[in-house]
Amino acid sequence: MVHVAVLGAGAWGTAVAGVLARNAESVALWCRRPELAAEITATGENTGYLPGVPLSPRIAATAQFSGAVDGASLVVLAIPLQQLRSRVSGWRTEFPDVPVVNLAKGVEAATGEFGTEIVRDVLDVRHVLALSGPNLAAEIARGQPAATVVAGSNLSVAQEVCGSFSTPAFHAHAVTDVLGVDVAGAFKNVVALAVGMVEGAGLGANARAAVLTLGLSEMAALGARLGASTSTFLGLAGAGDLVATSTSRLSRNHRVGLALGEGLPLGAAVARAGGTAEGVATAPALLRRDPDLPFVRDVVAVLEGVRSPVEAVSRLLSAS
Amino acid sequence: MVHVAVLGAGAWGTAVAGVLARNAESVALWCRRPELAAEITATGENTGYLPGVPLSPRIAATAQFSGAVDGASLVVLAIPLQQLRSRVSGWRTEFPDVPVVNLAKGVEAATGEFGTEIVRDVLDVRHVLALSGPNLAAEIARGQPAATVVAGSNLSVAQEVCGSFSTPAFHAHAVTDVLGVDVAGAFKNVVALAVGMVEGAGLGANARAAVLTLGLSEMAALGARLGASTSTFLGLAGAGDLVATSTSRLSRNHRVGLALGEGLPLGAAVARAGGTAEGVATAPALLRRDPDLPFVRDVVAVLEGVRSPVEAVSRLLSAS
Repeated sequence: MVHVAVLGAGAWGTAVAGVLARNAESVALWCRRPELAAEITATGENTGYLPGVPLSPRIAATAQFSGAVDGASLVVLAIPLQQLRSRVSGWRTEFPDVPVVNLAKGVEAATGEFGTEIVRDVLDVRHVLALSGPNLAAEIARGQPAATVVAGSNLSVAQEVCGSFSTPAFHAHAVTDVLGVDVAGAFKNVVALAVGMVEGAGLGANARAAVLTLGLSEMAALGARLGASTSTFLGLAGAGDLVATSTSRLSRNHRVGLALGEGLPLGAAVARAGGTAEGVATAPALLRRDPDLPFVRDVVAVLEGVRSPVEAVSRLLSAS
Repeated sequence: MVHVAVLGAGAWGTAVAGVLARNAESVALWCRRPELAAEITATGENTGYLPGVPLSPRIAATAQFSGAVDGASLVVLAIPLQQLRSRVSGWRTEFPDVPVVNLAKGVEAATGEFGTEIVRDVLDVRHVLALSGPNLAAEIARGQPAATVVAGSNLSVAQEVCGSFSTPAFHAHAVTDVLGVDVAGAFKNVVALAVGMVEGAGLGANARAAVLTLGLSEMAALGARLGASTSTFLGLAGAGDLVATSTSRLSRNHRVGLALGEGLPLGAAVARAGGTAEGVATAPALLRRDPDLPFVRDVVAVLEGVRSPVEAVSRLLSAS
């Protein structure tokens, strides 16, 4: 009997549990708050994050870590990036040595590390993979078609993990460029902020596409300097995730950018977007990792209120 | 006194004439139909293509080729790709040896050639360049910000041409990868058809971003085989133009794809979109240039009515 565990019951963790439940016999969905686990158990829905989506009866919500991972052949980490280290550290000694798939995207503010780097730092497991692509959770939960990338340094493990995720609607492709997938996943939130700014400032579709692309180019250049493969940035985890995130009001990074573009200061923009966006922490953390990122620097200048969004966009378009 | 000529008075040719009129003292806008030249002269507007946009008084519309190019230091070709060869051939003997900037995007059905290849075939001029980027004509005509790429094998000539185009709102960047810009400009119309199909079939934002990206990857792979630079496809003329074209209802390729996605056959789709789209001719022509293009092949299968859009998208998402 195949059992898998998803640790984290936000929208994306819950949607991924639904995908895995198409293939596994049982899926444990670990919730930080026992009340949420109780609510999901009682209603068969995660109403706060994925309203209107009935969960598979194969999914069991729980707030107990050891029960969730017991007997699991695969563990998925669906935890916000800035909380990833502390959360996983607490599980360190009990963590099973099975393939671990990280969903968290961003750069840790304190260390400048990407998601899989944090997991490898903390956990003593052989296989740490990353899953990323144009994957808006609400669409996946409703069974609409999508494709994604599973990156692992061991291709045959990545292919096996793909098998756990692939359904007739959800197509997972194995690659080995874990670093590239991490860079793309972190950087795209910064680009989504910038694209939101362009829209909020009413600068049009040309400026929007140009800013998205200048972000993609800088993302790929950073990846190349760090040793990632260019094809990752042309693919689903690169341009694909970037386009989906940057053109959707479902992305909080995009919504924060939109509010900044309309002239709101950061605090008010975050409040209107319904909470902070990963790109706000990731942008300055990327600069600590590599200072030669003029695109990111311009976004940080807007976040800090040092530059107006219109000024920042004009600088980006004129820099070659 | 600096004089430049734009040959072709569609929406893009007219918008480009407006950009050039910011720097040149006089711009000739050659119109195929004498009636259009007379109308533009009388009204100061190209109402059929760019309604509501008053043209600069520095722009003079004419149907006389020799008068238009006489004394020009730069000539811009704004002619639909499938008509480019016959049109330019007629001007061959009178064509001045000044930098020629081609705007036509696509692959010639009869020969499999890209825009600048056709121009170099026909004209005996030293410098043939290509201009491309996320440049929806209506926005540029209204003075909204945009960026573009001018590609020429001679970088200093490309930089000089950039100077003729650059304004405070329109940012032109010089590159040398003419072939890459040609490949991207042709291929993106095929991707715009496919992205339109995804939308017409109601498959969602994830599938849309995935299809756009799979198209981008195949475009870059084709470019690499032909000798183009990967950075072109990550840049404004690659991903940038692709995103602008694929996400805008202003693109006829996108509108034809939308109608195909809703289940209309090609003839009816073209009729509803208000005329044929370049991608319809370019897709089979690309296959003659290089048969190893599964993305293009799937789009052609839909154009020919051999495969449904939903089937084609599912095949694309599952192919790695």
